[in-house]
Amino acid sequence: MNQHALLHEPKTQLGFANPDGSITLRMRTASDDVKKITLIYGDKYIWADRVSIDMAFLCTDGTFDYYEAVVRAPFNRLAYYFEVFGKHHQKWFYTEWGPTETIDETEIDLMFFNFPYVNQEDIHIAPEWIENAIFYQIFPERFENGDKKNDPKNVVPWDSQPTRENFFGGDLLGIASHVDHLADLGINAIYMTPIFESPSNHKYNTTDYLKIDPEFGTLQDFKDLVKKCHDKGIKVVLDAVFNHSGFLFAEFQDVLKKGEKSIYKDWFHIHSYPVTTTPLGYEAFGFEAYMPKLNTGNAGVIEYLSKVARFWIEEADIDGWRLDVANEVDHEFWRIFRKEVRKAKKDAYIVGEIWHNAKPWLLGDQFDGAMNYPFTRACLNYFAYGNTDTESFQKLINATYVRNTTEANKAMLNILDSHDTPRFLTRAGGNIGRLKLAALFQMSFVGAPSVYYGTEIGMEGEQDPDCRRAMKWNKAEWNQDLYAFYKEMINLRKTRNSMTSEKIEWVETHNPHILAYLKHSKLESTLVVMNNCDKKAQGEIKHIVLNESSFITGNSKYKLNKNSVNVEMKAFEYLLFNVKK
Amino acid sequence: MNQHALLHEPKTQLGFANPDGSITLRMRTASDDVKKITLIYGDKYIWADRVSIDMAFLCTDGTFDYYEAVVRAPFNRLAYYFEVFGKHHQKWFYTEWGPTETIDETEIDLMFFNFPYVNQEDIHIAPEWIENAIFYQIFPERFENGDKKNDPKNVVPWDSQPTRENFFGGDLLGIASHVDHLADLGINAIYMTPIFESPSNHKYNTTDYLKIDPEFGTLQDFKDLVKKCHDKGIKVVLDAVFNHSGFLFAEFQDVLKKGEKSIYKDWFHIHSYPVTTTPLGYEAFGFEAYMPKLNTGNAGVIEYLSKVARFWIEEADIDGWRLDVANEVDHEFWRIFRKEVRKAKKDAYIVGEIWHNAKPWLLGDQFDGAMNYPFTRACLNYFAYGNTDTESFQKLINATYVRNTTEANKAMLNILDSHDTPRFLTRAGGNIGRLKLAALFQMSFVGAPSVYYGTEIGMEGEQDPDCRRAMKWNKAEWNQDLYAFYKEMINLRKTRNSMTSEKIEWVETHNPHILAYLKHSKLESTLVVMNNCDKKAQGEIKHIVLNESSFITGNSKYKLNKNSVNVEMKAFEYLLFNVKK
Repeated sequence: MNQHALLHEPKTQLGFANPDGSITLRMRTASDDVKKITLIYGDKYIWADRVSIDMAFLCTDGTFDYYEAVVRAPFNRLAYYFEVFGKHHQKWFYTEWGPTETIDETEIDLMFFNFPYVNQEDIHIAPEWIENAIFYQIFPERFENGDKKNDPKNVVPWDSQPTRENFFGGDLLGIASHVDHLADLGINAIYMTPIFESPSNHKYNTTDYLKIDPEFGTLQDFKDLVKKCHDKGIKVVLDAVFNHSGFLFAEFQDVLKKGEKSIYKDWFHIHSYPVTTTPLGYEAFGFEAYMPKLNTGNAGVIEYLSKVARFWIEEADIDGWRLDVANEVDHEFWRIFRKEVRKAKKDAYIVGEIWHNAKPWLLGDQFDGAMNYPFTRACLNYFAYGNTDTESFQKLINATYVRNTTEANKAMLNILDSHDTPRFLTRAGGNIGRLKLAALFQMSFVGAPSVYYGTEIGMEGEQDPDCRRAMKWNKAEWNQDLYAFYKEMINLRKTRNSMTSEKIEWVETHNPHILAYLKHSKLESTLVVMNNCDKKAQGEIKHIVLNESSFITGNSKYKLNKNSVNVEMKAFEYLLFNVKK
Repeated sequence: MNQHALLHEPKTQLGFANPDGSITLRMRTASDDVKKITLIYGDKYIWADRVSIDMAFLCTDGTFDYYEAVVRAPFNRLAYYFEVFGKHHQKWFYTEWGPTETIDETEIDLMFFNFPYVNQEDIHIAPEWIENAIFYQIFPERFENGDKKNDPKNVVPWDSQPTRENFFGGDLLGIASHVDHLADLGINAIYMTPIFESPSNHKYNTTDYLKIDPEFGTLQDFKDLVKKCHDKGIKVVLDAVFNHSGFLFAEFQDVLKKGEKSIYKDWFHIHSYPVTTTPLGYEAFGFEAYMPKLNTGNAGVIEYLSKVARFWIEEADIDGWRLDVANEVDHEFWRIFRKEVRKAKKDAYIVGEIWHNAKPWLLGDQFDGAMNYPFTRACLNYFAYGNTDTESFQKLINATYVRNTTEANKAMLNILDSHDTPRFLTRAGGNIGRLKLAALFQMSFVGAPSVYYGTEIGMEGEQDPDCRRAMKWNKAEWNQDLYAFYKEMINLRKTRNSMTSEKIEWVETHNPHILAYLKHSKLESTLVVMNNCDKKAQGEIKHIVLNESSFITGNSKYKLNKNSVNVEMKAFEYLLFNVKK
């Protein structure tokens, strides 16, 4: 056995308390190396009453296997260690001191792992609604021009090619005029990129955090939009660009003007006075002079941004915040932010833009979830590019899954693309079949799916600025088949609990091109089968009992046997079955 | 190469920012498995400018080896990965996605590790004075009876056997009367177990957090004591028992009396009303009805305990807090506590009682250090019991070292014993030689040593209550040789920077019983040699140049050669040399 591969650590994604007070413990081993893992646990003050249970195999990422147990600490305190049985008659103990061949019970109180106490305050509790949320991401400047009167100068025609600088005239009334489209599609939450005053089309360089950009509309327009969304059961999440302000932010202008005498000089990270942009005389986002980094450790900045965070909840009733460049802001600021936001709205959703492993932010004290770019990467490689095989895809998805706690996985924002990436369909060479399979996977995986505007009708676009083309409203230009597919899948996610459930059970299909998996909820299971290949493929799923009424949807041939199903699938076809429990 | 053993993670003890803004990166490998590790790092926005450096071998814990590099992020952002070269011509890349045999530079921005930004607010900065602090731990009820007028009823004679219940009459004036002893010994900080009003002799069940126990003295007595200590350059740290109150705490009594109608009912975790002690009707420390657990998530409790934390700093000028049962209190409370304490005194020291791996509390947002019971365990096994060999001791010490960041290691409270353990000398079978070697090790290791009262004069005692005997003030009963040794070692730690320095370099002695190591500071090095064996032992340390003026202190024979030193040591003898740089 490879004892060096063993890994567990309390108070991380490998050992955490759940909202119901139970504790999830995970053990990592080398892949295919272990026969059984026994968890020995009890209360440290009555260790003699300890009990043993076998852990369940959770998943493999190809390099490592993971085992899991969910237990209750009888008196909120949990002491525990592991006995790991190798495939070849070896046995290792695994305690806080690592792997050992023997264990000395006289020293056990210094050796065992300790989850000292389950305190409610430390438990990550995401908003309940996030489990069933289906997001739609809108880039407001490009969604619809609802009010020509507030247009910027020199707007380009709606079907123009986007550049970094041009304006199309999209606004809040435009969004409001299409809430029916959103309701028809079936989504129940919107994430809008920034809408506060800013001179750019993307508005990630904020001039005034407390003011709707006049070219987007008024405060009243926004309040009306939120109300209209809420009436349709749609939550609204805004973009908090708190890592940096815009160049025209009054407090930054004050520093430019008054230099060291400005009372706002500590709101930023100024290197020297007078403040220069070339060379860049202050910290900025990247090396962008027009985005001066805010000093989020400064009491004035904390107070101001806290006010902003509360204001849009209290004034306009928004339902959460997406945090731009979240990983470059200090953790302590985000802890304060979380408290302020949750004080203003108990079930507000907080999601960070983090492209990497987001663990340091997702243990309960900061964000609920992160934009799931690791999920995006797995879907791109498998569905869009087809450059990874089914087994590798499963392992990569498993790897992204075990990076997070159960609660964080529920609250991840699972995206196929965004305003910061080429569109998925474009990366898939325009192949609608590939997009459909990816969307089906997204809609059946744990975490909130988010549809980037226009994806549902087949819009394309390369890297920013091309991925920010204006939304097409001429239905003749829509891919109606794709739109119907999206509606159906969104509806399935909303009506079948098993689509949103946490764990995914990969199923053998006896064909390397056919992906199949089961999703389980308490009352039902869903079997998803797809041929992620540009050729036809046959597969067989054994040990499964289906009947004619099991078919939910799909576009592929299949044959039901007594204890199995045979599938004969053309390129990028899929099938969904209801499996009785 | 065992690629499964590789481990690194940013924003943990394996990757952290230092007070000077540099970033320390550590890589774990299987022991004796790797030839070289190269770190490739740069700014993520100008990745083409990345550079490579080889990491330095840090230490081994026997199972794993650790490598380290300290680097600067040119623009506060650090992207990086590792190339690990095995002993046998293999090479693995190690990124955020684990070990891989190849690396795809087109996907590198999603693969590399990311330390997104070095924000000042997230950096752990311990008080500067802690690096040179030498603590003395006092159990006030047993140190000296300085005022007979405030004695509890039925005090027992000073030389009585302690029981869980009896009182000896020790008090603040008693401590004040012996500040000269402390100054003579050379310590420069005191940690006192609780002194607030409480009916017990240990006072871990607080009645009133804002009042000195009348049997210990008055607020003025305490202020005078702190002043007297400060005048002698001695810091004063108090015990914050915030996990639980005492049964007589007015707010708990109010709940007992008024039940659900008490405005303090949410200050505790009450299971049902009316509140009963048998069966225990509320959360408590362990199963102790007289120690009801405080609800540190309650706003009233947070406000009250914050006031307490500030009060003793503002009113009596104390220099820090030791936190009782620190690991059972929620993390968020400790974050608030840290801010409140640091607001009141910028360089206040915060040290938690944590017997286990204290990593979740020692990353900068909560404590500076923890009571180092893992260190205690290593010293007991090696020096007191002699049941572990020199190499195992070195590995265990290395294992405790790599559990912490550099800053946390500086701020650990290194103890050989405490009011919660048998005395070290008793566990060492009364062998003064064993105690001396352990004390020498303690005084030359990184982290603040703490001497439990009476250890310096050879007091003994089994587990609590026996370890809480009254201090002996009749010098005829002192072990004068031991006292002189303690004075000398404390003085050496205060005058030789290398004694306090971070890293320890174990040195080969060609004898398994002889422990030797070098400590380095910028200007000097100290060589420590000890024979941890009850028989005489000979050893040789090669590749070291000493001369007659190198000898600092010790009680053993040695012979200097051109490039080495031979030692001929009787049982438990030691030697210290100054090594020129």
